[in-house]
Amino acid sequence: MNKRIIIRLIGKIILTEVILMIPSLLIAFAYGEGDAAGFLFTMIPAGLLGLLLTFVRKSEERMSSRDGYFIVAAAWIIISLIGAMPLYISGEFDSYWNALFEIVSGFTTTGASILARPEKLGHGILFWRSFTHWIGGMGVLVFVMMVMPMENDNSMHLVRAEVPGPTAGKLVPRMRTTSMILYGIYAAMTLILIVILHLFGMETFDSFCIAFGTAGTGGFATSSAGIAGYNSLAIEITLSIFMLLFGVNFSVYHLILLGKLKEAFSMEEVKTYLAIVAVSTLAIACNIINFAGGFFKGLRQAFFQVSSIITTTGFATVDFDLWPEFSKHLLVLLMVVGACAGSTGGGMKVSRVLILLKSSIAEVAQIINPKGVVTVRLNGKPVDKKTLSSTRIYAASYMILVCLFTLIVSLDGLDFTTNFTAVLSCFNNIGPGLNLVGPMVNFSVYSDWAQVILSVAMLTGRLEIFPMLLLFARSAHDR
Amino acid sequence: MNKRIIIRLIGKIILTEVILMIPSLLIAFAYGEGDAAGFLFTMIPAGLLGLLLTFVRKSEERMSSRDGYFIVAAAWIIISLIGAMPLYISGEFDSYWNALFEIVSGFTTTGASILARPEKLGHGILFWRSFTHWIGGMGVLVFVMMVMPMENDNSMHLVRAEVPGPTAGKLVPRMRTTSMILYGIYAAMTLILIVILHLFGMETFDSFCIAFGTAGTGGFATSSAGIAGYNSLAIEITLSIFMLLFGVNFSVYHLILLGKLKEAFSMEEVKTYLAIVAVSTLAIACNIINFAGGFFKGLRQAFFQVSSIITTTGFATVDFDLWPEFSKHLLVLLMVVGACAGSTGGGMKVSRVLILLKSSIAEVAQIINPKGVVTVRLNGKPVDKKTLSSTRIYAASYMILVCLFTLIVSLDGLDFTTNFTAVLSCFNNIGPGLNLVGPMVNFSVYSDWAQVILSVAMLTGRLEIFPMLLLFARSAHDR
Repeated sequence: MNKRIIIRLIGKIILTEVILMIPSLLIAFAYGEGDAAGFLFTMIPAGLLGLLLTFVRKSEERMSSRDGYFIVAAAWIIISLIGAMPLYISGEFDSYWNALFEIVSGFTTTGASILARPEKLGHGILFWRSFTHWIGGMGVLVFVMMVMPMENDNSMHLVRAEVPGPTAGKLVPRMRTTSMILYGIYAAMTLILIVILHLFGMETFDSFCIAFGTAGTGGFATSSAGIAGYNSLAIEITLSIFMLLFGVNFSVYHLILLGKLKEAFSMEEVKTYLAIVAVSTLAIACNIINFAGGFFKGLRQAFFQVSSIITTTGFATVDFDLWPEFSKHLLVLLMVVGACAGSTGGGMKVSRVLILLKSSIAEVAQIINPKGVVTVRLNGKPVDKKTLSSTRIYAASYMILVCLFTLIVSLDGLDFTTNFTAVLSCFNNIGPGLNLVGPMVNFSVYSDWAQVILSVAMLTGRLEIFPMLLLFARSAHDR
Repeated sequence: MNKRIIIRLIGKIILTEVILMIPSLLIAFAYGEGDAAGFLFTMIPAGLLGLLLTFVRKSEERMSSRDGYFIVAAAWIIISLIGAMPLYISGEFDSYWNALFEIVSGFTTTGASILARPEKLGHGILFWRSFTHWIGGMGVLVFVMMVMPMENDNSMHLVRAEVPGPTAGKLVPRMRTTSMILYGIYAAMTLILIVILHLFGMETFDSFCIAFGTAGTGGFATSSAGIAGYNSLAIEITLSIFMLLFGVNFSVYHLILLGKLKEAFSMEEVKTYLAIVAVSTLAIACNIINFAGGFFKGLRQAFFQVSSIITTTGFATVDFDLWPEFSKHLLVLLMVVGACAGSTGGGMKVSRVLILLKSSIAEVAQIINPKGVVTVRLNGKPVDKKTLSSTRIYAASYMILVCLFTLIVSLDGLDFTTNFTAVLSCFNNIGPGLNLVGPMVNFSVYSDWAQVILSVAMLTGRLEIFPMLLLFARSAHDR
């Protein structure tokens, strides 16, 4: 590994984080609730550390694939460790590990909280918490790539490690321009959402926070009442639709901007994603008809919750833990499926599920016709062997890790449904689970060490497993 | 598909089943409990049907891979439909679907029961129920291949579809001789177990039934008290050890018989399997120390239960649903892992888990060294590409199917832990799950249609997915 490249880049990432804290600091000052100190005590030492690291001499070498994966994993851990400081200093969290869980949940866009009453936090902290969703949604490294020129090329390695989905694609040949297009579309959509929410009567501060939570598919709210607290059909439907939009592959929006409408609307992953949403919404609406008191009330609740869970946002308007079992089981299934690749959503991604399903069908076709050449196609094109193999390995690793994480947190003594859905919820960056971690309760039922394990699960899920595994790989290769 | 090959072979399979019912018929006569009628009313029409089918004109063609998979899936369904008849006629089951669930559970060596009190059944029926474990454990088609000469070669297709594990191997070049060796070893080990159980004070009838349940890794007992009812440390330890032995790849025993001890004891899958058993036993023993009242009592209970679950037998000496959560979670994990390939045990198989784990590690190695050729090795030899790909597809299909089966049975309204562990238990052919399907309760909590779905899950799991999927494959290929 090239230590100089790594250290310099991490220095830049820390500096970027410090700059990203400025709006929260200003808000903290404006509200004068005493949480500004936490930001200052974090930003000054972190800023100095970041500067110090960037003084390391430049390296002439190219970044290796391994360096890229290592930087991404290390960067996410470091920004979380630093980002948790203002929360810890605020005194509203019982321990540093609680604060770390909360901010990892922010950056990974999980939205799982250990707070019963987030409204007790200062506005600066609340803003920071929601803003981490926005940054984490599109990617921290993607942001850094946009704002600072990369001195060593091969930044593709960073993108491959950070951007979710079976294949990492550039929209345009230059990576920096790609980052700018992505963040441009993202910022524009977020802005539109903020304006709409405000028009529908939401306070300015909340509009920003809720929009960040929606755009990043995060799910932190600003009060314990959550989205139900606004008590507005217009807001509920706006959020349902925008959650879905942020769960769509962003290259679709790029194609639309380029006027390639036909191409944009023919993407198999997006069509499947919308079909799953439609079918699940209808199924749940029928299933909860008695609970909701009518089909249309059920449809409204179901649409919001399906959008919220499949996009891995995790907002809730009702306590779906009280729904009939079938609806709850279906939500758990949607947790695993997740949103589209190349969106801000988490989970396994619809395209991966499609590849796995088609692999299964191809295996049967191969048995029927052992000598034929059976190919798996996506968007009408054959999927290349490397993507096929890594998608299947991803699924297997996913299964193994979910099992292991569940086993480890079970030492805390909670029941199977709670542990399994908590791990699924964290690993897929959703937020709520079932039972003791249902939508109306929080993760404070877990002890500190279990919260650290769940934080690792969130990071492993967000970075799609391999960057985190690499951190634990034998240092024998390290030299 | 070659219909004549299929029909003739299915005729032979039905005839074989009728012959296999003879011992149960004789026992029913001997005890004179009225269950003989059920056997006669099944055997006579089934025998005639079987004979009729074998009158179909011979085909000169070779059996295709598709024919092989189709025959195996169809045969397992047909022998279950016929095998359930004596149970249904006995009148102890509320519906034919209950009886079908029970006998599918028998053939697939699941051992899940819908009876609260099996001792109410006649001895003929009890014997038949346990005997299906013994036949299903090593394989129905493997048995047919041994007793009747195959007229169309390519019987490898049948073996590949029926024998569990990522690769189907012959012990010797001729398939018929391989079947004989396998059933020879199997019968000898079962006989030894019967004698030992009898020496330790078990009644003759029970010795046979319990030995069948152990050998096939099934798990049906003859009374509601189960293994705990014998109240004998010697029997408990004997069963713990024999369950483990039947979970070992049978080629190990063949190697031992050939005197190739070094080769036999160097198999990576078997070593991993024993290591998992040792570690899990110790972990559970420590975890249940208070529940069991001491480390050694805990060790005894843990060893029995770990052997029972990892081999997918499903016997229980204590109500492990009352154990601390960590132990329960670990048992669920062992359910998924399962025994060795080429044994009578079910589950995903240790060799598959090894291949998946190593694939995951190889993916990391590939990131570290993108240009290097990374191979996955088992027993020191590289695993071929076809096995790698089909193992990964198997894991993905496994995950998708477990999710779907859980979702479907959730319509019955039971909780998530019950549904998920019931499906895992059926799919991996274990027997008990947790909560409402724990070791001291039974599957009668599910309605008839859910029992049929779970029966399909048992068959799909036993035949390792693809033969059953093929049955549902588009008939467009069919002509």
